[in-house]
Amino acid sequence: MTSPSTISPKFLSAGNELGVVAVGFSGGQCKPGVDAAPTALISAGLLTQLSEDLGYTLHHDDTVHNYSSLMPSSDPDYRNMKNPLAVSAVTKQLSGQVYDHAKHGRLVLTLGGDHSIAIGTIAGTSRAIKERLGREMAVIWVDAHADINTPETSESGNIHGMPVAFLTGLAKEEKADVFGWLGEEKALSLKKLVYIGLRDIDKGEKKILRDHGIKAFSMHDIDKHGIGRVMEMALGHIGHDTPIHLSFDVDALDPQWAPSTGTPVRGGLTLREGDYIAECVHETGSLVAMDLVEVNPSLEAVGAADTIRAGCSLVRCALGDTLL
Amino acid sequence: MTSPSTISPKFLSAGNELGVVAVGFSGGQCKPGVDAAPTALISAGLLTQLSEDLGYTLHHDDTVHNYSSLMPSSDPDYRNMKNPLAVSAVTKQLSGQVYDHAKHGRLVLTLGGDHSIAIGTIAGTSRAIKERLGREMAVIWVDAHADINTPETSESGNIHGMPVAFLTGLAKEEKADVFGWLGEEKALSLKKLVYIGLRDIDKGEKKILRDHGIKAFSMHDIDKHGIGRVMEMALGHIGHDTPIHLSFDVDALDPQWAPSTGTPVRGGLTLREGDYIAECVHETGSLVAMDLVEVNPSLEAVGAADTIRAGCSLVRCALGDTLL
Amino acid sequence: MTSPSTISPKFLSAGNELGVVAVGFSGGQCKPGVDAAPTALISAGLLTQLSEDLGYTLHHDDTVHNYSSLMPSSDPDYRNMKNPLAVSAVTKQLSGQVYDHAKHGRLVLTLGGDHSIAIGTIAGTSRAIKERLGREMAVIWVDAHADINTPETSESGNIHGMPVAFLTGLAKEEKADVFGWLGEEKALSLKKLVYIGLRDIDKGEKKILRDHGIKAFSMHDIDKHGIGRVMEMALGHIGHDTPIHLSFDVDALDPQWAPSTGTPVRGGLTLREGDYIAECVHETGSLVAMDLVEVNPSLEAVGAADTIRAGCSLVRCALGDTLL
Ligand SMILES: [Mn+2]
Ligand SMILES: [Mn+2]
Ligand SMILES: [Mn+2]
Ligand SMILES: [Mn+2]
Ligand SMILES: [Mn+2]
Ligand SMILES: [Mn+2]
Repeated sequence: MTSPSTISPKFLSAGNELGVVAVGFSGGQCKPGVDAAPTALISAGLLTQLSEDLGYTLHHDDTVHNYSSLMPSSDPDYRNMKNPLAVSAVTKQLSGQVYDHAKHGRLVLTLGGDHSIAIGTIAGTSRAIKERLGREMAVIWVDAHADINTPETSESGNIHGMPVAFLTGLAKEEKADVFGWLGEEKALSLKKLVYIGLRDIDKGEKKILRDHGIKAFSMHDIDKHGIGRVMEMALGHIGHDTPIHLSFDVDALDPQWAPSTGTPVRGGLTLREGDYIAECVHETGSLVAMDLVEVNPSLEAVGAADTIRAGCSLVRCALGDTLL
Repeated sequence: MTSPSTISPKFLSAGNELGVVAVGFSGGQCKPGVDAAPTALISAGLLTQLSEDLGYTLHHDDTVHNYSSLMPSSDPDYRNMKNPLAVSAVTKQLSGQVYDHAKHGRLVLTLGGDHSIAIGTIAGTSRAIKERLGREMAVIWVDAHADINTPETSESGNIHGMPVAFLTGLAKEEKADVFGWLGEEKALSLKKLVYIGLRDIDKGEKKILRDHGIKAFSMHDIDKHGIGRVMEMALGHIGHDTPIHLSFDVDALDPQWAPSTGTPVRGGLTLREGDYIAECVHETGSLVAMDLVEVNPSLEAVGAADTIRAGCSLVRCALGDTLL
Repeated sequence: MTSPSTISPKFLSAGNELGVVAVGFSGGQCKPGVDAAPTALISAGLLTQLSEDLGYTLHHDDTVHNYSSLMPSSDPDYRNMKNPLAVSAVTKQLSGQVYDHAKHGRLVLTLGGDHSIAIGTIAGTSRAIKERLGREMAVIWVDAHADINTPETSESGNIHGMPVAFLTGLAKEEKADVFGWLGEEKALSLKKLVYIGLRDIDKGEKKILRDHGIKAFSMHDIDKHGIGRVMEMALGHIGHDTPIHLSFDVDALDPQWAPSTGTPVRGGLTLREGDYIAECVHETGSLVAMDLVEVNPSLEAVGAADTIRAGCSLVRCALGDTLL
């Protein structure tokens, strides 16, 4: 049984006010179904638990957005990117939705959708935090993948493998309708980025991570130090006075707990480790936004329910659920 | 291959004398089948292994007790408790059976049955240890649940969720046939109680744990510190000169290893961690009694055998089986 | 995506030269099928990955050796050993094959086959290292079992449970056709042996391990310290200036990840821990040879593919594949 958190949020004006954005979008990759995740998570009771058990006041338009009005009639590949116009338009719109919650000092929860949507959520939170607090926020990116390909290093052209590159300015594009709208005020500093759970990194990404000295804890590091010590190091890198946006790709979990996702990779986090990460982030009091992405209920007959339950658990833990 | 332990027991007069009580009782909760556990564990060879491989001299009446003569003709709910007369009568009788072994300085193994039976086993050991050694014993309660509801805080009314409350005096009842027989000499001090494995605690229980400062290691603590460090802390809290009663609810294990139990909860101990806990308790030389409870062979077609094997492994480890 | 290792090998004359020996031999135990492992591992792409992704130059005769010309027409039990003439003849031949690679300063990878073949691989590496560098090498034996029975302590008579005894001289035999060919120059010192993953040890083996003070990390030790600290201790015992032969029995992994093996034992290494061990050995720069044994694709319909994939992963990690 859960009860409201006893942690005081440091960077929110109203700790129990929760903005929720449900994003039914799958254009950042090629497998249909990930757009059905928000409905599945909500049907599983997630929002009810957040409001009734954890005591949040929800600000939600009761809509799973599919952004159909934004879909271009034609969307040819551009600089190796697939669906560039659609992803750009959706994430631009989403960045406004998230910004509208965050500027009021609310915690923001975004239910994806594929991980390309983090272009929108992080841009939105980053801008609001800069305006409201005059600070740069940090991002904890929990994922099997680094999602830091540029259009040129990407082998697949799927934009869900590129969001970090666009957010940090490693990838740039001047065309307004292909992420040209991403300005300074929405950017993320590479020094404020911490990865946890990495285990499937492209060659070009390895080089980017090394060249820029990006803080990353792979599964090897978790085996070496244990998840307890890794979280100490990850949070130590960020520091006590920095707002945190947690972007959680469910494929960070081992397929044993989250099989129903587009690009599962063996050797991942146990559900216990995933929940522990989320709990530790909550305990900092610094959380300002969370994304949960890449749940795809259509990929596995049996495993979909497990994956949805795991996703709900991760969100509840990040939002203050505790065992004791 | 196993061989007798090389650890000298500190609080037993005859280290290789083992009293065994088989308790086929399920009245502390609502799912039939947990009463079949002792037969299943014994059929799987547990007692043979204890005697032949680990060298124990068994004191066992070759009976799985169902206490049918103690069953009341009518047993209405009382103070929200289900089957109050039956559970009280059985645990009173059981406390005598355990006491009769423990007063002779034997190690006592009780095979449940649901966890309500710990009212009897702990009352029996506690009294014998006080009489024989003039000491208070400690209890290590390994469980997904705290089982510390009072009749008033319990939502289900199942007494298997209340044994710790009655043993520690948090719950009291003067009626002789509803635990009124539990006297001072059988009581357990809240300071001598240590939980390991908690992850599903009722709201009222959370408050009890906090208000009384009860030592508890949740799954979060195990992820944070590792099971090695947690056992150091748990045993450090108890100290070297205190006899230990180990009450092991098989649902402390993750359902992956012990699915066939009445109230499984995800995110539990691996079998390796469960065995490790039992091994560490054995290594102290302070073990005076062990309960293994909540194996319910009827709940899972496939998983029952796994659960039974896991239960046998936990008992063997606590009784001195080692890998090297 | 993988790329060549950045670790410089200390004891090889050409770090990217890899000798490969494929050994389709199952005579060290009784279950048919383990002789099919090399073909299965190679069909799964292992050698291609080593050459294309990790940049090794392969020296391989493109043959899975079944040593049919060496099989005796009659091979009665001798001193309780099954197939003594066959195992002796095959391992003698294999020791020459491995020696021929190792004397040129190549890293040597042997794909078994059952674990009896380590008599040949370790004898071959040991001799080449002594000749080439004037040093004694160390062996890291990753296994659920100690494989250190003498013919007299063995209950089964299967020689795959005896290789360490013959290699270290605990078991001796003067008959030239029953391991009499194993001379001083091929021997392994008990002080240079480290076990990891043990959990199923025969009584006679326990005594041998204790009497000789052999360094062994059981699953209990891994639970106690974590795999990170265990590898520090294991490699600390060996020291920086000692060449390492890694003999990896896939049954060290838990059956959850490697079910298709002749003698699976519960409570084993996770695949993450197995890969971590291999990665740590690679990072030392001291690896001179690796065996991967006891994959038996015929034992499990579903689990065979998992086991093969796990085996490939262990080899890749030991040969320099990294997550970041
Ligand atoms: Mn991912
Ligand atoms: Mn991702
Ligand atoms: Mn219980
Ligand atoms: Mn329980
Ligand atoms: Mn072996
Ligand atoms: Mn083995």
